[in-house]
Amino acid sequence: MDVREELKKRANFFDKELEKFLKNGEPETLYNATRHLPLAGGKRLRPCISMVACEAVKGDVINVMPLAIGLELVHNFTLVHDDIMDQSKLRRNIPAVHIKYGMPTAIIAGDLLFTKAFESMHNISGDLSIFKNVEYGLIDCVRLISEGQQLDIEFEDRKIVAEDEYLDMILKKTAVLFMYSAEAGAILGGGSREQINALNEYGKSLGLAFQIQDDYLDMSSDEKTLGKDIGNDIRNGKKTLIAVHSLNNAKGEDRKLLEKIFGNLKATEDEVKKVFKLFNKTKSVEYAKFKAIEHCEKAKKTLNVIEDSEAKEILLALADYSIQRKK
Amino acid sequence: MDVREELKKRANFFDKELEKFLKNGEPETLYNATRHLPLAGGKRLRPCISMVACEAVKGDVINVMPLAIGLELVHNFTLVHDDIMDQSKLRRNIPAVHIKYGMPTAIIAGDLLFTKAFESMHNISGDLSIFKNVEYGLIDCVRLISEGQQLDIEFEDRKIVAEDEYLDMILKKTAVLFMYSAEAGAILGGGSREQINALNEYGKSLGLAFQIQDDYLDMSSDEKTLGKDIGNDIRNGKKTLIAVHSLNNAKGEDRKLLEKIFGNLKATEDEVKKVFKLFNKTKSVEYAKFKAIEHCEKAKKTLNVIEDSEAKEILLALADYSIQRKK
Repeated sequence: MDVREELKKRANFFDKELEKFLKNGEPETLYNATRHLPLAGGKRLRPCISMVACEAVKGDVINVMPLAIGLELVHNFTLVHDDIMDQSKLRRNIPAVHIKYGMPTAIIAGDLLFTKAFESMHNISGDLSIFKNVEYGLIDCVRLISEGQQLDIEFEDRKIVAEDEYLDMILKKTAVLFMYSAEAGAILGGGSREQINALNEYGKSLGLAFQIQDDYLDMSSDEKTLGKDIGNDIRNGKKTLIAVHSLNNAKGEDRKLLEKIFGNLKATEDEVKKVFKLFNKTKSVEYAKFKAIEHCEKAKKTLNVIEDSEAKEILLALADYSIQRKK
Repeated sequence: MDVREELKKRANFFDKELEKFLKNGEPETLYNATRHLPLAGGKRLRPCISMVACEAVKGDVINVMPLAIGLELVHNFTLVHDDIMDQSKLRRNIPAVHIKYGMPTAIIAGDLLFTKAFESMHNISGDLSIFKNVEYGLIDCVRLISEGQQLDIEFEDRKIVAEDEYLDMILKKTAVLFMYSAEAGAILGGGSREQINALNEYGKSLGLAFQIQDDYLDMSSDEKTLGKDIGNDIRNGKKTLIAVHSLNNAKGEDRKLLEKIFGNLKATEDEVKKVFKLFNKTKSVEYAKFKAIEHCEKAKKTLNVIEDSEAKEILLALADYSIQRKK
């Protein structure tokens, strides 16, 4: 089974539903800005996870589509606002919303995506108490994502961040939405309490594996291809798992050097290379890879209580894919 | 009866509930930024309207408090984001959130206020289908407010705006939340369909009267005290009802002059004074006052179907207050 092929099938189905939902409106510029990012494609990981989780508990995937749209729009709303805060120019290889439509309209477009996410949640059919619980879960995700985003900003200005603090940050910023995607997919699929809990744990571990693999990919190019992004991350003092581990484990002169250069906006290319070498000397790049594998294995183990099916195989393969992918 | 006294009593009760709800959290800076504006006071008009509407249909005001908090937090979230877009420095006589905490944290704080508003809505007790309807109403308000905010931005760059377009803009940007405050207060108070519709109409007319009175107050100072704000509004081409009416009714040379100066960022103080004189020559200041009174009278008339009570008197007095206030 080709996991990317299976995900692509579901993403295509999702894209049609999303296009139907995210209709044009007035004022046109605002709706164009609102549709700009969500209709520009993307892997649709969160919708796919909710769909496959629903399938894994033998649910009808149609029941999960309002949630799937809610998940993707919440994710996109945070990206639109993040790009303003980080002054990022590109996203999904097209200009960021604030670059194309200006900052004021981009802020409003983010707010409108947030609104549309909850509008979609109101299309969840069936038992009202299930709707209420599932909708509250998404509200709580946005709270946690906001907290995680703020921690990410604050960590850039801090000399040292403990590994536990880093894990708490990526749990909030990234993993909770994965966790909730799998959990809520199972709830709307009519899963048992045991299945729902297992898929919650699966989503959490998968999200952590994904984020740590992202950190790893950003840093694992060899010295020759050491790109602009790595330099920027080092100069900005971005607290990835690799940086956190290295800062906490470097000794003596190495540590002094690291503390001097890491987070120094004016660091030269030579200094950036030194930091990169230290990351390897403290075995921090290897450590991140080890941690990603650990979370991947944990994700797969949680699925033991789920009956064998094609959906379960996709979830297992997705966990492997999360740490094997090259981008 | 002193309407301001009656509103103050309810605002004080509301403030205690809000403080209980908007607790501190981690990261502390984010929660401080989130609490900065809502806990800095304000008239609490929207919560008060929902409370008095509930009382007017003989409901228990306790049932309306989660809604009242939701209304105030939605209002505050839009203010936090508006101040970033408009680069405003002050709000309620204290530094705007983005001035005190920086733009990135202010964007997140606005998002978190939005989230907390819906968290509060989940505290609505009783019938789940009523909860679902009322919550959807607030989601729809945020959509309309976003559309109104975008129209407001776009109107600044347009030469001419028709009065209907202006009314549509303030309906979305301001009046829908007043409308919904009164309507949802009546729903949660257990009002009849007739009472709910009446209070919806009341809130709409009250909101329009309020916004037009704001426009009027901004422009009604005499030439001697012609303040900085009026100059800025004229230079920025801000489409208030007065400006819209004058631009649509000035003739010949007057119109040419108006079109030349209005919206010209480099207009001199003398030119600003000329525009101000034209606003009076076209009787646009008087016209705005007339329109505010018209909406106030309409608001009061909608209350005919509501049984006499102290609450009804407050609503009637609030309509009068909306056009009599000096700030």
